Amino acid sequence: MTEWPIFLQEERQKVEAEMEIFIEKNTNDDHLKKSMLYSLQAGGKRIRPLLLLTTIASFGKKASLGDYQVAASLEMIHTYSLIHDDLPAMDNDALRRGKPTNHIVFGAGMATLAGDGLLTGAFQLLSTAAINDSVKIRLIQLLTQAAGTQGMVAGQALDIASEEKKIALEDLIHIHERKTGALLCFATMAGGLLAQQPESVITTLRQMGVHLGLAFQIRDDLLDVLSTEEKMGKATKKDDQAGKNTYPGLLGVKKSEEALTNELQAAHLLLNQMGNEFDKTNMTHFLNLFSLERGLS
Amino acid sequence: MTEWPIFLQEERQKVEAEMEIFIEKNTNDDHLKKSMLYSLQAGGKRIRPLLLLTTIASFGKKASLGDYQVAASLEMIHTYSLIHDDLPAMDNDALRRGKPTNHIVFGAGMATLAGDGLLTGAFQLLSTAAINDSVKIRLIQLLTQAAGTQGMVAGQALDIASEEKKIALEDLIHIHERKTGALLCFATMAGGLLAQQPESVITTLRQMGVHLGLAFQIRDDLLDVLSTEEKMGKATKKDDQAGKNTYPGLLGVKKSEEALTNELQAAHLLLNQMGNEFDKTNMTHFLNLFSLERGLS
Repeated sequence: MTEWPIFLQEERQKVEAEMEIFIEKNTNDDHLKKSMLYSLQAGGKRIRPLLLLTTIASFGKKASLGDYQVAASLEMIHTYSLIHDDLPAMDNDALRRGKPTNHIVFGAGMATLAGDGLLTGAFQLLSTAAINDSVKIRLIQLLTQAAGTQGMVAGQALDIASEEKKIALEDLIHIHERKTGALLCFATMAGGLLAQQPESVITTLRQMGVHLGLAFQIRDDLLDVLSTEEKMGKATKKDDQAGKNTYPGLLGVKKSEEALTNELQAAHLLLNQMGNEFDKTNMTHFLNLFSLERGLS
Repeated sequence: MTEWPIFLQEERQKVEAEMEIFIEKNTNDDHLKKSMLYSLQAGGKRIRPLLLLTTIASFGKKASLGDYQVAASLEMIHTYSLIHDDLPAMDNDALRRGKPTNHIVFGAGMATLAGDGLLTGAFQLLSTAAINDSVKIRLIQLLTQAAGTQGMVAGQALDIASEEKKIALEDLIHIHERKTGALLCFATMAGGLLAQQPESVITTLRQMGVHLGLAFQIRDDLLDVLSTEEKMGKATKKDDQAGKNTYPGLLGVKKSEEALTNELQAAHLLLNQMGNEFDKTNMTHFLNLFSLERGLS
C-alpha cells in the first residue's frame, strides 16, 4: 500500500484533474466555466473523494479512470452545495477556505448557475464514467438519494428551519446525518461497490460512513468555537451568532469532545469487523484525520 | 389514437401524479416538500412531458409507468429552472403563471433549496424509473447534457452576460437553443428512445426538437410584446425593461412572426419525412400549439 501522505497527494491530484478535464470539455460559456473552476480550485481538502479512494485501495484494488470520475463527481456535488450554502439568500458567507466566496467574486446570479452547473455536471460525469453499467445506475441512485431531498438538501432545509430555535439533540443528529453524513456514507459505500464487494460489506461501510459523518460535523462545530478565523480560512464563532444549533451549543465543549470520541470509536469498531481482505492501515490514518488534534482543518 | 384534447388531459394528469408520488415519498422535510409542490402544482402547461408522450404515442406505443416517470423527471427539471430563474439574484420575478413566485412565498433560501431538490430529484426519479437499463443510462446522459453546462444552464449564463448588450441574431439563436431548445430536444429524442426507435429516427426527432425550441422561444418573445399581464399570468413588456435580447427587439414584430412561421414549417417538413410507423396526427396538433393564434399561452 502506498505511504499515506503520498497516497493523499497523488489521489487528490488525480481527482482534481478529472474535475478540470470534465469542466473544460463540457462548459459552453467562459464566465460560467471560470465561476465553476474558481470554487473547484479553491483549495478543498477533498475529504469525500479521498474517503472513497481510500476505501477502494483498502480492498487491494488500484483505482481506475472510472473510479476517479466517480470520486470527481462526488466532489462536484460537495462544491455545488458550498456555493449555494454561501449565497446571500442562505448563510450569506463572504469567506470560504480563506478566499472570497463565489457570489462575492461572480455575483449571486452566476454563483447560483455555477452551483446548478456543478450539480447537473456531477450526474453527467457519473453517467458517462468508465465503469460497469449496473454499478453506474446503483451509484446514481445512491448519490441522488444522498444529495437530494432525503439527504443533503433536506438537511439544509431542516437547518434553516431550526435557526433561532432550541432543538433536541436527536433533531440535531437528524440534521447532521443528512447535511454532512449522507455524502460521507456515499463515499464509503461507493468505494465498496466499485471494489465489487458484497452487500454485507456495503452495509458495514454505510454504518462506518454514518459515524464518520457525525464525527466530521461535531469536529466542525467544535472548531468553530475553539479555532480562529485565520486558522480556519473562514469566519468562526459564527454558528452562535447565526442562531445555529451545534453540538457545543447543546452539550458544551467537553461533552461534545466525548461525543466526537464516541463516534470515532464506533467507526474503529466497525473497521475491526472488516475481513482480512480489507487492509486497515490507510482507513486508520483516515479516521485520525477526524480527531481534534490532527491536521484536518 | 386517443382524441387530442383527451390525450392532453389524461397524459398531463398521469405525469402530475408521478411527480407528486415521487415528492411525497422522497422528501424528508415538510417545508421543503410544500415549496417544491407549490411550484410543481402552479398550473404549468406541461409542454415538455406532453411532447415526449406525444412522440411515444405517435409510434403507436402505449406509454408505460416508466415512460411517465421519465416525463415527470423532465418536468421537474423545467420547474427547478423556473424557480431559480425567478430568484432575486436572477430575473427577480414576483409573478409566474398568475401566482406569486416560489421565493415570494417561501423565501429565497428555501426557493434555492426547492430548486436544488427538484433538480437532484429529477435524476433520482430517472435513475429508479421502470425502464430498460441501457435506455436509462442514455437518457441520464442526454438529460444532464440538455440541462447542464452545455445546455440550459449555459443558455441562462449567456443570457445574463448579454443583458444590456446588443447581440447578433446568431448569438441570440445560440442562447435560445440552449435555454429552451435543449429540453425540447430531449423530449422528442427521449420519446423516440423509449419507443425503441433506431438512431436515424432519433436524429430526425432531435432536429424537430431544435426547430420547436426556437419556435417556442420566438413565440414567447412575441407574446411578451403583444400580450397583457392578465392573459399571460406573468409580467409582460418585461424583456425590454430588463435589457433582454429578444427576437422582436432584434428583428421587429413582423420579421419575428416570419421567423416563427419558418421554424414551424421546418418542423412540419421533418414530420413529413418520418416513416409510416409514425402517426402524424397528434404531432401536427402539437405543432399547432406553437403558432401565435393557438391556445398555448
